[in-house]
Amino acid sequence: MYIGFSEAEKFLRNCEDAVIITHRNPDGDCIGAGFGLQDILSQMGIRSKVVCSDEFPQRYAFMTDGSNQYGDFEPKTVIAVDIADTKLMGDYEQIYGDKVQLCIDHHISNKNYAEKTLLQGEATAACEIIYALAKFMGVEITKHCATCLYTGIATDSGCFKYDCTTPRAHEIAAEMMRNYDINFARINRYMFDVKSRGRLMLESRLSELMEENLDGRLVIVAVTQAMMSEMGVSMEELEGFAPMTIQLENTEVGILMRERKDGVFKCSFRSAYDVNVSEICQTIGGGGHAKAAGCTLEGSLEDAKKILVEAVRKALT
Amino acid sequence: MYIGFSEAEKFLRNCEDAVIITHRNPDGDCIGAGFGLQDILSQMGIRSKVVCSDEFPQRYAFMTDGSNQYGDFEPKTVIAVDIADTKLMGDYEQIYGDKVQLCIDHHISNKNYAEKTLLQGEATAACEIIYALAKFMGVEITKHCATCLYTGIATDSGCFKYDCTTPRAHEIAAEMMRNYDINFARINRYMFDVKSRGRLMLESRLSELMEENLDGRLVIVAVTQAMMSEMGVSMEELEGFAPMTIQLENTEVGILMRERKDGVFKCSFRSAYDVNVSEICQTIGGGGHAKAAGCTLEGSLEDAKKILVEAVRKALT
Repeated sequence: MYIGFSEAEKFLRNCEDAVIITHRNPDGDCIGAGFGLQDILSQMGIRSKVVCSDEFPQRYAFMTDGSNQYGDFEPKTVIAVDIADTKLMGDYEQIYGDKVQLCIDHHISNKNYAEKTLLQGEATAACEIIYALAKFMGVEITKHCATCLYTGIATDSGCFKYDCTTPRAHEIAAEMMRNYDINFARINRYMFDVKSRGRLMLESRLSELMEENLDGRLVIVAVTQAMMSEMGVSMEELEGFAPMTIQLENTEVGILMRERKDGVFKCSFRSAYDVNVSEICQTIGGGGHAKAAGCTLEGSLEDAKKILVEAVRKALT
Repeated sequence: MYIGFSEAEKFLRNCEDAVIITHRNPDGDCIGAGFGLQDILSQMGIRSKVVCSDEFPQRYAFMTDGSNQYGDFEPKTVIAVDIADTKLMGDYEQIYGDKVQLCIDHHISNKNYAEKTLLQGEATAACEIIYALAKFMGVEITKHCATCLYTGIATDSGCFKYDCTTPRAHEIAAEMMRNYDINFARINRYMFDVKSRGRLMLESRLSELMEENLDGRLVIVAVTQAMMSEMGVSMEELEGFAPMTIQLENTEVGILMRERKDGVFKCSFRSAYDVNVSEICQTIGGGGHAKAAGCTLEGSLEDAKKILVEAVRKALT
């Protein structure tokens, strides 16, 4: 059932001992949303724990360190943030997949799996919704909370760059800078600009890795486990690499394929102009946003590429 | 003489036939400021022409096309935007260098060469000042004007990413999105994400071109005319390349050296953390902002590098 702020407030004020689930391969928005929400619940005297099927990458330590201060406990409430589909919960799917009471999300492809879903498809990020909800509820936001929520908004919008950026996202950023003195420049440096030597090495190979298809309208870049080992770069270090697939002016759709350790290809789509990649991904079991979406594909690299090219070809005709 | 908004308004309302000077190697802010100001003057029935010593790069056509609609005329008023020092006017220095009546700028290194200088060192961009001035004056802003001013604010802040981003910059962006429906995503794609094949080729060589000095605290990347020819990339296509010199976490100062056709090296400094590069540049004839500054050096590449390393070494001790 889709709900609004009033019901979300009623639910949150009356919950206790919550587990907040973030999605696998966690990014700035789900981590920011998870720990931001934890802070908000703390303000209301409610304890929670933020979990993830994968380890939280080191680069997000400024949000995760010192958080989850309640340790472990048996949860009474199950909340999911920034998760469109239970399969994105990884190992937590079998534990909580059919028990989620509240989902806060901004993906238009959300599967409505939770009892109550607070969905705002036009929001820049889950963090934008959570900030607005905190304001609606009149709950005090700490500097740490503001830091988390800013991070989610900034990362999901490519630093206020992409089409999904809302005027509200800018206004929230201004409020955070004025009222909470967040170190936004430091956050942004680590979220967008600092790269490991392994990542720089990979980027130096971008030109040769770009495979143009459909008269250059589609670019695919595939990074295998072997390549990651060779260059000493991990899956999470490739966060933010997908937009690099659409740097040529004529490219309309870019896809970054990353091979997971289990051999499955995690495919990240980016749309440069008007193609809706969430729709394309939904035809092959995935989803996301109009301009940024994803899916996973099993099988060989070549077979996976064929599926991708065909799915995009259909959308471009 | 430094002035405020009241005097700037009085000056602008009473000027006529203005030449608006932008700096050589024009960037998004000076072009946006120049053409944004032209629109504002037009609203007041005042004609103007925006000039530059260099050609306006094609990527800024969305601002320049259809502008300068008054053609050529003998100017009665001389205005400079985003120019800290008359030598940055290129060929226009000898014509107007000592005749500038109003300068609107945000560089703390401004040489106070104009009769009246509207300087706000804390503003994200000259465009932020001009937007605020237009609001102060109660002048109507057109969509084209908003597009120009948004571009300047976005480009100078690395898309609301860098330390120079103000809360006001975010608020202005929100207002522009709400009131003028600017195509910000399209602007940002062209300002930040679209790259030519020549530029991508250069980027693929970044790792090998990065010269680490002072225990990695300083990184220098030099691009010569020969390299530009070899890769088919022009000076202006290298706009935005300077931040790539500080991608390694430990790098505190990055310098991009670009050889101009006249053999002079245009050096762009970026500060990753707390080093004030405007101060460093001022010791060698340049200037700019605390986190982004520049200077020019003549002589051989090796001699120029020695000067740069020495200047930075002094600042780091």
